[in-house]
Amino acid sequence: MFVCTACGRKFSLEEHHQRCPICNEPLQLENMKGKRRDGNVWERYRDFYSIPLSMDYSLGEGDTPIIRVDMYGNEFYLKNETLNPTWSFKDRGTFVAINRAIQMGFDRIGVVSTGNMAASVAAYGAHAGLDTIVLVSENILNEKISQLLPYGAKILKVKGDYGELYFKSLKIGKTRKIYFMNSDDPFRIEGYKTIAYELAEKVDVDYVFVPTSSGGLFRGVYKGFLELKESGTIDKIPEMVAVQAKGCSPICSAYPSGKIGRFKNASTIAHAIENPYPPSGNAVLRILKKNGWKCIAVEEDEIIKAQEELAYKGIFVQPASATTLAVLKKLNLKNSRIALILTGSGLKTKSIEYSKTIPLCDIEELEDCEVFK
Amino acid sequence: MFVCTACGRKFSLEEHHQRCPICNEPLQLENMKGKRRDGNVWERYRDFYSIPLSMDYSLGEGDTPIIRVDMYGNEFYLKNETLNPTWSFKDRGTFVAINRAIQMGFDRIGVVSTGNMAASVAAYGAHAGLDTIVLVSENILNEKISQLLPYGAKILKVKGDYGELYFKSLKIGKTRKIYFMNSDDPFRIEGYKTIAYELAEKVDVDYVFVPTSSGGLFRGVYKGFLELKESGTIDKIPEMVAVQAKGCSPICSAYPSGKIGRFKNASTIAHAIENPYPPSGNAVLRILKKNGWKCIAVEEDEIIKAQEELAYKGIFVQPASATTLAVLKKLNLKNSRIALILTGSGLKTKSIEYSKTIPLCDIEELEDCEVFK
Repeated sequence: MFVCTACGRKFSLEEHHQRCPICNEPLQLENMKGKRRDGNVWERYRDFYSIPLSMDYSLGEGDTPIIRVDMYGNEFYLKNETLNPTWSFKDRGTFVAINRAIQMGFDRIGVVSTGNMAASVAAYGAHAGLDTIVLVSENILNEKISQLLPYGAKILKVKGDYGELYFKSLKIGKTRKIYFMNSDDPFRIEGYKTIAYELAEKVDVDYVFVPTSSGGLFRGVYKGFLELKESGTIDKIPEMVAVQAKGCSPICSAYPSGKIGRFKNASTIAHAIENPYPPSGNAVLRILKKNGWKCIAVEEDEIIKAQEELAYKGIFVQPASATTLAVLKKLNLKNSRIALILTGSGLKTKSIEYSKTIPLCDIEELEDCEVFK
Repeated sequence: MFVCTACGRKFSLEEHHQRCPICNEPLQLENMKGKRRDGNVWERYRDFYSIPLSMDYSLGEGDTPIIRVDMYGNEFYLKNETLNPTWSFKDRGTFVAINRAIQMGFDRIGVVSTGNMAASVAAYGAHAGLDTIVLVSENILNEKISQLLPYGAKILKVKGDYGELYFKSLKIGKTRKIYFMNSDDPFRIEGYKTIAYELAEKVDVDYVFVPTSSGGLFRGVYKGFLELKESGTIDKIPEMVAVQAKGCSPICSAYPSGKIGRFKNASTIAHAIENPYPPSGNAVLRILKKNGWKCIAVEEDEIIKAQEELAYKGIFVQPASATTLAVLKKLNLKNSRIALILTGSGLKTKSIEYSKTIPLCDIEELEDCEVFK
């Protein structure tokens, strides 16, 4: 059954709902209980899925490394989601949603996205042999297009309000029989929950810092921990911190009122979390308030510095992922075990200009070069 | 013990040899026998390592997905090495070499590379806290630098013959106590052999197509299969095809003479395999001749087409990796099971210009857009 995250009403999985038909808030699948088995992450946690998941549609997503790094008096566990098939966490959600698409008889899928999710849906759609439509905003950067085009999806630039496009695409999807598997789709959430499962297998953390845009990832990771707790696998859910860039922080801004509004003049280097009107914003606020958790926004220079610090530990992430380390400075933590969800690869963004001059040396004089001293 | 791949002389592991002190051909570690255990790939195959491997220096390399795709009447098994920590297969070799560096007491490491291997050594060096020096050629592309700089290594551009730089760096490394873990270092080979182990666990293929530049990867995969055969784990080693780009094919060109010469005016879109004077070229030729196997070179347009075809199946690789699919057209294969070693991510190269025009639509007229028809 689908359950509305706001009003709690239930709806059958047989109809292809995406948001609550009554209150228009996000739906999600009922929590599942189970125990861990053998195999890859989808096989180990098959008890936790009410729809069958066929490996025919998998590109090998999930089961990403967790790297321990000690910094600033804390133990960090870096969940490296950059090692998914299209180099972001989105692939976990796309895999589950593609399974749903096939089961419901869709032969066309779509997505509204300008970055990680666009590439993910294009790749999985291609692999499954589905007709795939990607709607991007008019002013999309060429570097994003070049990472998306190879998969052969149909791409359409749309002129107009990008927040509105999310809702409009769901409407068109209904009439045209196209499954728009957008950011907080209930089946995406079912994919993202595996991040919590994998974390809980390896380490018992005190905190999880989650880059938060539409809210889909935050909801998914939370649902995963909740299901493990209800199954008796873990005793306690780690404290989850929703992290945003100050330049686009609609969830943090709405914390006092409890109701998401549109964030004006959004602008941040962390493009992957630059959604000014997050469709799961209210749902995330409900989770934060219920648990007494925080939403924290970080500055641009802190993001850039944190990206550098993570690379100096061997992991090169996109700026959106670096917000997780940046947020540490806003919290007074010591001796804590903290999981950072590193959502996407640094190769995806050329946002940082490296102006450093590289020294040049002649091979004949190589031995005397400064670098060897 | 080290064994020379040419003269067969043996040398103790206690001295840090990199090539045969007698004939200057590549060394490798003696073949090991063992059985498979549990855990990650390094733990499963620990019998096959004569040096201890500490997970403290791991970034989660290896255990990459194998995706089955049916094309042109054959079953392809795509070994997706783009999902390693710096998005290429080089990380497997760097992990083993870093362990060796620590064991031998080096506090400085280095590498001669302009691409995948440079980023890999920079990342692992940073993670291990080692001083890391990367020597690149004078005319390195800015896009390569931008993927390398974040890790904080010392980078030096060198003016002069790039093939000579390989040998010169080993010499400087000896006097300056810097471990240059270049392309066909014996410990790199020990890392690459895990690709064969992982393949053999999942599927019994007839052929393995390997993009071949310095020859290190080809030697590693071959050594892995050989060790499994000598351990009684597999009955037969699949036929390995060394694949090069016609624009830089020193190994294929040297097949008749059996002796590597410098390939003149090397030029190909497959930059990651553009080594005109491969240091393990003769060693690869010896393997090919001993087994009656082929070296095949493919054209530029075939590489580009193959890159597109792989992306249409959901995996976006760099041109060097696409040579593996391109080579199929040169062979008359049907009903064969073929493993393709997909060495590096498509995000790393902007070599293909996508000039396709993306249609634009106003959100108010979205429903009537051509793409939805």
